[in-house]
Amino acid sequence: MADYAPPPDHQRLYLEIQYLGTHFQGWQMQAKGERTVQAELHTALSRFAEAHVPVACGRTDTGVHAENMPVHVDVKNLRVPISKLKRALNAHLPEDLSVLKAEEARTGFHARFSCKWRAYRYDLLLCEERRPLYETRALRVPYVLNLKQMEEAAALLIGEHDFRAFATQEERQTRRIIYGCHLEHSGVHLSVHIRGESFLRHQIRAIIGTLLLIGSGRQTLSEFEVLLQGKNRAEAGPNVKPHGLHFLGAGY
Amino acid sequence: MADYAPPPDHQRLYLEIQYLGTHFQGWQMQAKGERTVQAELHTALSRFAEAHVPVACGRTDTGVHAENMPVHVDVKNLRVPISKLKRALNAHLPEDLSVLKAEEARTGFHARFSCKWRAYRYDLLLCEERRPLYETRALRVPYVLNLKQMEEAAALLIGEHDFRAFATQEERQTRRIIYGCHLEHSGVHLSVHIRGESFLRHQIRAIIGTLLLIGSGRQTLSEFEVLLQGKNRAEAGPNVKPHGLHFLGAGY
Repeated sequence: MADYAPPPDHQRLYLEIQYLGTHFQGWQMQAKGERTVQAELHTALSRFAEAHVPVACGRTDTGVHAENMPVHVDVKNLRVPISKLKRALNAHLPEDLSVLKAEEARTGFHARFSCKWRAYRYDLLLCEERRPLYETRALRVPYVLNLKQMEEAAALLIGEHDFRAFATQEERQTRRIIYGCHLEHSGVHLSVHIRGESFLRHQIRAIIGTLLLIGSGRQTLSEFEVLLQGKNRAEAGPNVKPHGLHFLGAGY
Repeated sequence: MADYAPPPDHQRLYLEIQYLGTHFQGWQMQAKGERTVQAELHTALSRFAEAHVPVACGRTDTGVHAENMPVHVDVKNLRVPISKLKRALNAHLPEDLSVLKAEEARTGFHARFSCKWRAYRYDLLLCEERRPLYETRALRVPYVLNLKQMEEAAALLIGEHDFRAFATQEERQTRRIIYGCHLEHSGVHLSVHIRGESFLRHQIRAIIGTLLLIGSGRQTLSEFEVLLQGKNRAEAGPNVKPHGLHFLGAGY
């Protein structure tokens, strides 16, 4: 835990934020000053303290949304009472980014390393024609899906597997634990819920792409089971677009 | 029924459409050529037939959304097979307007006069801070609401009442029947569902404004009951903003 302590004379803040990913180049600050969530949040924090770069529980890609993203940040000389920080930050953050909670982090807390699980939802629209009320945040699938087969595949994901076939440019080890995966279906709306300890780069988008292969009959459940034993990336489905992906929350 | 027949040599089409109201000046065509749903739909229909002005089940105001709005339109010399009309229209409609269904109307059908009930939902967000994922389509209420009192008021709305106190610039008689009204609450999300035979101008927005008076303790249930006996507009709550209002669908 000592490694996770803030630098001397600093205090560690705990934030929960929500953002609409559409107009962000993802979470992480970029060299060329692209508009990112981390950069916007750091700028707002810097109005009220000497702030380090904030650390998120998960680093979302361009276009991915966050319902409730935990963040920590180390600051020095905070100039507003912590009870008023949420309101102060929101007054300076853009419309598509908001602080839901701001308080002192508990001792030893680290937004990324202390995290025990992360939950995501991927939204799909099962219809041929545009749905203006929904499709800016959900992927439209105009062909018929076998949801029963997809549900069986979702159940196969649960547990520890080598997810190499579902990762992009990943240098870490590729075994990961998925705690839960299920479908929710109502009318034209289909959501895939996935909760796991941690995820590889693009893992969820590749999983959804592969579930769509299964739902459309282009891959069998037994082929899918084999993929979960550490196959090549080329044998799984393509990464679906990011605009349907929502980071829901995390557990510590 | 004969009055509802299309003109000679015309056929009557039945459409169901969905639209995001944000960038429309409501349903109805305007003299100065403002961007309206009716005008956009008429322009698209005119590519494929000699089309009269389409008739909607309900005429939504600026900023109000429609999940599934029934429409009829009388056309002559339709140049695409009716089975391909939905796709043809969607190829020429803007991103925020879509045809969900297009078919021949049944004999005597009139989108407005044949309608037996209309259902709406008004979405609220119960929180102090911005919620970028939701608030473009829901009204944020930063103060505490007594939901139990609001539920009791919702139940009082059911039945036939004189809704004069909830109407704006209304020349029709003001008695209306509400078949159902209830709240759905989950976390920061509160939706008010209302279903009735037909509604007066701004009636639902004034009802929600008045339910908020009750929820915040500024009006009592007995004052609300008296309002339903045909009081002055000034005695009910203000019209809430239109961006939380969703036309859900209609029954025939």
